[in-house]
Amino acid sequence: MSTLTTYVYAFAEGGREMADLLGGKGAGLAEMTRLGLPVPPGFTVTTEACRIYLATGQEPLGLAAEEARALAVLEQAMSRTLGAPDDPLLVSVRSGARFSMPGMMETILDIGLNDRSVTGLAKASGQERFAWDSYRRLVQMFGRTVMGVDGDLFEQAIAARKAQRGTRDDHDLDAGELALLAEEFKAIIRRETGEDFPQDPAEQLRRAVRAVFDSWNGERARVYRRRERIPEDLGTAVNVQAMVFGNLGPDSGTGVAFTRDPATGARGVYGDYLPDAQGEDVVSGVRDAVPLDQLKVLDPRAYVELGDHLRTLECHYRDLCDVEFTIERGRLWILQTRVGKRTAEAAFRIAHDLRAEETITADEALARVDGTELARLMFPRFDTTPADMPLAHGVAASPGAAVGVAVFDSAEARRRAAEGQYTVLVRRETTPDDLPGMIAAQAVLTSRGGKTSHAAVVARGMGKVCVCGAESLTVDPVARRFTTDTGVVVREGDTVSVDGTAGTVHLGALPLTASDVGRALETGESTGPLTEAVLATLAHADSVRRLQVRANADTPEDAARARALGAQGIGLCRTEHMFLGERRKLVEAMILARDDTAREQSLAALLPLQRADFTGILEAMDGLPVTIRLIDPPLHEFLPDRTELAVRLASSAHPDVHDRELLAAVERLHEQNPMLGLRGVRLGLAVPGLMAMQVRAIAEAVAHRLDVGGRPHAEIMIPLVGTVEELRLARTEAERVLAEVTARTGRGLDLPIGTMIELPRAALTAGSIAEAADFFSFGTNDLTQTTWGLSRDDAEASFFPLYLEKGIFSVSPFETIDHEGVGRLVELAVEAGHAVKPSLQTGVCGEHGGDPESIHFFHRAGLDYVSCSPFRIPAARLEAGRAAVAGIESSDSR
Amino acid sequence: MSTLTTYVYAFAEGGREMADLLGGKGAGLAEMTRLGLPVPPGFTVTTEACRIYLATGQEPLGLAAEEARALAVLEQAMSRTLGAPDDPLLVSVRSGARFSMPGMMETILDIGLNDRSVTGLAKASGQERFAWDSYRRLVQMFGRTVMGVDGDLFEQAIAARKAQRGTRDDHDLDAGELALLAEEFKAIIRRETGEDFPQDPAEQLRRAVRAVFDSWNGERARVYRRRERIPEDLGTAVNVQAMVFGNLGPDSGTGVAFTRDPATGARGVYGDYLPDAQGEDVVSGVRDAVPLDQLKVLDPRAYVELGDHLRTLECHYRDLCDVEFTIERGRLWILQTRVGKRTAEAAFRIAHDLRAEETITADEALARVDGTELARLMFPRFDTTPADMPLAHGVAASPGAAVGVAVFDSAEARRRAAEGQYTVLVRRETTPDDLPGMIAAQAVLTSRGGKTSHAAVVARGMGKVCVCGAESLTVDPVARRFTTDTGVVVREGDTVSVDGTAGTVHLGALPLTASDVGRALETGESTGPLTEAVLATLAHADSVRRLQVRANADTPEDAARARALGAQGIGLCRTEHMFLGERRKLVEAMILARDDTAREQSLAALLPLQRADFTGILEAMDGLPVTIRLIDPPLHEFLPDRTELAVRLASSAHPDVHDRELLAAVERLHEQNPMLGLRGVRLGLAVPGLMAMQVRAIAEAVAHRLDVGGRPHAEIMIPLVGTVEELRLARTEAERVLAEVTARTGRGLDLPIGTMIELPRAALTAGSIAEAADFFSFGTNDLTQTTWGLSRDDAEASFFPLYLEKGIFSVSPFETIDHEGVGRLVELAVEAGHAVKPSLQTGVCGEHGGDPESIHFFHRAGLDYVSCSPFRIPAARLEAGRAAVAGIESSDSR
Repeated sequence: MSTLTTYVYAFAEGGREMADLLGGKGAGLAEMTRLGLPVPPGFTVTTEACRIYLATGQEPLGLAAEEARALAVLEQAMSRTLGAPDDPLLVSVRSGARFSMPGMMETILDIGLNDRSVTGLAKASGQERFAWDSYRRLVQMFGRTVMGVDGDLFEQAIAARKAQRGTRDDHDLDAGELALLAEEFKAIIRRETGEDFPQDPAEQLRRAVRAVFDSWNGERARVYRRRERIPEDLGTAVNVQAMVFGNLGPDSGTGVAFTRDPATGARGVYGDYLPDAQGEDVVSGVRDAVPLDQLKVLDPRAYVELGDHLRTLECHYRDLCDVEFTIERGRLWILQTRVGKRTAEAAFRIAHDLRAEETITADEALARVDGTELARLMFPRFDTTPADMPLAHGVAASPGAAVGVAVFDSAEARRRAAEGQYTVLVRRETTPDDLPGMIAAQAVLTSRGGKTSHAAVVARGMGKVCVCGAESLTVDPVARRFTTDTGVVVREGDTVSVDGTAGTVHLGALPLTASDVGRALETGESTGPLTEAVLATLAHADSVRRLQVRANADTPEDAARARALGAQGIGLCRTEHMFLGERRKLVEAMILARDDTAREQSLAALLPLQRADFTGILEAMDGLPVTIRLIDPPLHEFLPDRTELAVRLASSAHPDVHDRELLAAVERLHEQNPMLGLRGVRLGLAVPGLMAMQVRAIAEAVAHRLDVGGRPHAEIMIPLVGTVEELRLARTEAERVLAEVTARTGRGLDLPIGTMIELPRAALTAGSIAEAADFFSFGTNDLTQTTWGLSRDDAEASFFPLYLEKGIFSVSPFETIDHEGVGRLVELAVEAGHAVKPSLQTGVCGEHGGDPESIHFFHRAGLDYVSCSPFRIPAARLEAGRAAVAGIESSDSR
Repeated sequence: MSTLTTYVYAFAEGGREMADLLGGKGAGLAEMTRLGLPVPPGFTVTTEACRIYLATGQEPLGLAAEEARALAVLEQAMSRTLGAPDDPLLVSVRSGARFSMPGMMETILDIGLNDRSVTGLAKASGQERFAWDSYRRLVQMFGRTVMGVDGDLFEQAIAARKAQRGTRDDHDLDAGELALLAEEFKAIIRRETGEDFPQDPAEQLRRAVRAVFDSWNGERARVYRRRERIPEDLGTAVNVQAMVFGNLGPDSGTGVAFTRDPATGARGVYGDYLPDAQGEDVVSGVRDAVPLDQLKVLDPRAYVELGDHLRTLECHYRDLCDVEFTIERGRLWILQTRVGKRTAEAAFRIAHDLRAEETITADEALARVDGTELARLMFPRFDTTPADMPLAHGVAASPGAAVGVAVFDSAEARRRAAEGQYTVLVRRETTPDDLPGMIAAQAVLTSRGGKTSHAAVVARGMGKVCVCGAESLTVDPVARRFTTDTGVVVREGDTVSVDGTAGTVHLGALPLTASDVGRALETGESTGPLTEAVLATLAHADSVRRLQVRANADTPEDAARARALGAQGIGLCRTEHMFLGERRKLVEAMILARDDTAREQSLAALLPLQRADFTGILEAMDGLPVTIRLIDPPLHEFLPDRTELAVRLASSAHPDVHDRELLAAVERLHEQNPMLGLRGVRLGLAVPGLMAMQVRAIAEAVAHRLDVGGRPHAEIMIPLVGTVEELRLARTEAERVLAEVTARTGRGLDLPIGTMIELPRAALTAGSIAEAADFFSFGTNDLTQTTWGLSRDDAEASFFPLYLEKGIFSVSPFETIDHEGVGRLVELAVEAGHAVKPSLQTGVCGEHGGDPESIHFFHRAGLDYVSCSPFRIPAARLEAGRAAVAGIESSDSR
């Protein structure tokens, strides 16, 4: 019988480039075999065979013959026969898909054992217990995996046997007892399935391969793939490999080795070794491994050989390699290799060192690290894992570690900060009113809200530690305390530690380590190999990136910090934060104004304050662009909550007149869906004088900066535009004010005027809008909300957890931009905008501007810049660089 | 001097096909001249000359010479010379753009008069007063329009002169006084401008033409164009025409004539005549005109001649023509013609008659009427305009007229309806809870909300009369009364009349006329010429249209009525209305359920109720498709208002336990932006069992209908899908239930399962979504909200009036689909959906499905059907037919 397609490849026939067909593991085994490393021989059944099997329910024609031939070759190489009564060849059968799916599919070991070969194995190995233990394991595993018997039945038999023996440890069972167990297992199989455990080794092998195929469609594997967005139709390869044993005596053993330290990145071989043990034992941690160094003493020859192989592999893979090996009676076997996982620190150091050793290029070194790793290195962290249980778990909303005393409102946070105390602001959830407290505190802790709740977004923006949605906490701001679900009460002034990286809260002060990397990024000075690696990699990123990186910053302090961290301007300066605090009264007066005069008075009072805000920011960003967004949120956000106010009035015997007026205004301005209401440019057009006041403040600030010899580059940004008509009217108004201030000051004030693109309609009609805009700034937060028709605040609390669980989202669209929907609008708008106005400047100022994966998207979409919170700037610079070198061949499987 | 372009056309040189260049009026004058009608000669300066003038600030080279030549020809034709001292030729100078802009630009009459020719005119006409009145008018009009003098100054001079004379009527001023006024006017001009009123007739003409050019950019004209979406760069033509006078004695006069009755469409000439008068007098209504018939007596020759001309024109224009004419001393002149405006009734009758006379084709007849006119004919109306002032004006939200007693809540409306009383439901604004009352009442009146508020949308859907947003009314539902701004108090039980066509409310019962057309559309029987015309035209529309028309209907009654009105199925059957009323308690129980068992119990109680709903609707629509949308709105809509509940609890000494539980649930379900929250498919996926219950109810209803020999065609529609993953999960669940009911009933239940496309992301990813959908139904209400980022309820109350006023919208995007934004998404989705699945069925079920202009868009976009409220079905059928014959040449200017 002959087929046109090859379904089986001996390890010697494959290679790393064949991962689609052989799976990741099979390709690695083939590559090592090709390199001449001592890999136990074997063969791989291809993913294509699996796909045919899954589609038709039958093994493809010719597969059985190919397997038989490959097995014959294997038997010849090992000079043994599968399952032969004396000294049998045993094989393992393992899955190995294109993408790693650890633990999701089946493995069957010791194929080839049967009632006769088990004694052969005992004789050949000289280890009777080992042989019977292997056999009962095979029967158990085969019964469960291949024959579908409930695994509990076997476990119950083991338990009964141990009870009879009076022990709780498997290891106390001797060869005879294990032989009895094997018999019992066979009886269970017979009882449950009506057929016998197959004694024919060839049948064992054939059925094991088929079981691995079937496991591709197991429940666990399907859920995993949906979550990881691994295509359903790839199928898995199956690796059949001669078994080797590390548990045949003191001259045997097993271990794991890395070509460098995966924790720190330090040069030099690193790993663990476990004498007289099998691979499983290392994983299960039943016995303590020794450092790999000790192998030098235990088996100097194997140690040297292993070192040679590690060098070969690192040199070949040009990256940190992670190797599993076994020594069987003094003979070294390499069982698996892959590019090794590593910590963020190691990632930077290894990439930098490999580059210094000229193993890889600077572009490749850049591709080997990422922004998420860099962000992790920037924040302080707790030295050690604390011994005590945390008080609560929540969402790891903004990374880093902080220690401080619990406070329950902004006033207290500020008071204690003024005294030099470190604080943790604890709230059910935060609102814009909590901003002063968030600024004053070291960390924010909330009992409600997800990764993009107000607390989370603002804290990330500030680089503050934040744990949010710690739902087991009951926060009582009136009594100034919170209670855990175990009844621990934490009162104002008690010290707590917040781990924003792990998402935990602890009682008392955990020891903190400041981040060298954070400091180095602000000063530009290296203090050791890690900071050197980070700065060098970032410098290379800066040299290759096309995307500029700007900051979202609303204060001179933020602007200055952003500049130190490498910001090339401000992409989003929100002006509404400038209307809070003590100025709220003026805004309130503006809203309550009964006539034009009263409104103009409150606007006139706001003007000098806004002007001072802008002057400070323009000074901090002197010479660089500052994009100022005119007021965006609905006016009722500056007024008290409707229900609270109504309840207060209803319960008061002598209601306050001002409260009544306020409630009337709140009722008047109340909106069913404020997100979709009177805000942005709509507000600017509807409230006479508001937009003019803001433009005047900007213009006068620019004129002032010019007067004192500065180089101000302010840009005026109109939010929430849906049609070019809105922008035209707003632009006309702004230009009128600019001309007026120009006339008065004699300063040329030809500021660029542009718009947010944050509504689907703006993106869809970007061609027309470009006619009236000097720039586009994509507000991808709002654009995501409207494109998906979901409110971030509401959705995260209600159905996002369900959607992530069901695999509808693999990641929140507020975290990483949704390419197909929101991303498509961005692409359409950039294209249409540039078609009409090639000089149009484009950027993004939503949260996505700081998200690594999104930055790659924006690079491809052709934007000019991303803007993100100051603390995300280094990571954004890095990712913008990585995006520019994307397509560079990196290591295989990271 | 010679030019390559012609800027001036004598009337004899142009024609109706040259309207772009000559404007509408000029083209009509030219056409009539070409037809040999007695048009006072003249010439037209082209729109191109205007455009050059406006762009460069200078008249184009050669224009002056062409004007001079054209004037010479005109003088020769009239045997008089412009402004000659004795018997002068006088001309009018009038604007005339491509699109009619009535009253928006300037007109200057009597050009050619000066200090000398005025006496010539007096002599030639034998009417001294006439001559001096004409002169003072010219000086006044020229001074204001051409020379920019404040018009008030002239009015003050007239007032002073009248005071001196002791009269309040211009007509009491005699020739001498008018001559003095002319002198005064010249003095005013000199004082204000420093120059004299030009005596040179040629200069008068040149400057008048230029003033008309300038008026294109006048403030009024610009605002008008923005509102009417007339391009800014067209410019206006200028018509210079010999003046003729109808006020030279009893053998002179002026009038307006129609070729048929523009009010009823009846055959036969119709019009008004005013002897010894000028055109202005007809317009100003100073004197009473006589019916045109009387001209037969007054001037039989002219009457016959006029009749001939009218026949010529109607035959030529193949439509109702509207003609202005003047008889100067027994000589008939035709001054203007255009296709005449007409009532809805006349539109149908004229189109039908012209078709019967074989003047136009059936397609043309169809193109001559529209759905808005048909809708207007379907509703009852008030016989006469009432003498009293209305109690209030509001938004004409749903047309028709109704008389009933005022009631202030649903219970009262139902109680009185049960007693056979007609009622008008008066509310501040309506909510879904008011539905029973709206069903029971004859009309709905609200003091808040716009054309697409809940009251308006639901009332239109039901075909109920509705006036909403009558803001001058203060509605007090507790005291059961409303008060007008003039202090009139209307109490429960008082009779009021509501005119939903005019948007007015009146005290007492106005006399009503039922609509023959409405009755004929339901019965299919004609009762007179109008109903015959309507039915014939609609029959033709049905025979040519490609778009199917379905109904939005939630009850068997609505379904039956829709079917009678021609619906070809139900495009949207909302299921949430079925959760109101007495069933609300069950829904509440489901929401408050503490565990799965409790929730399943309330769902089980809802199942038979829902099944009965569906059975009834499937029966009413037997044989036709019924698209059932699974529950869409957020659950808190079924619970009480948060603020009200909180206030009730806060003010109560012994708060109700149930209220407390309710408040907790309301708080838990509270959303910042419910429109963007947990609703639609999200709700279906989040609430276990809810979707399954609804699908089961549908499946069992279908099985039951099959059992009794029916032909049920139910389709299951999943709302608010944003990604295909949601639809896949919902579909899997639905198919599971269908299979289960199939197994149980033995009935094949392979119902189509489709989705709403109502989120931008759904439209953008329609290709993927089509893979899991049997049909798309565009929910253009929500799609408009999300594409524009605006909430209909909020926006209409806050900034829509401003936006309409500023011309940002010419029409609300909720009324007529926004082609560039929302429409583009519809087009993208239809295209992508069909590319993936050519058999995909597409329709629209938003409010736009019943909007005439939108229906044309949906036809072009290639949808299979539109679905609208039952009462809009005839209009939708008509418009779908009109869309199919669009492109047919219709009359010029409608």
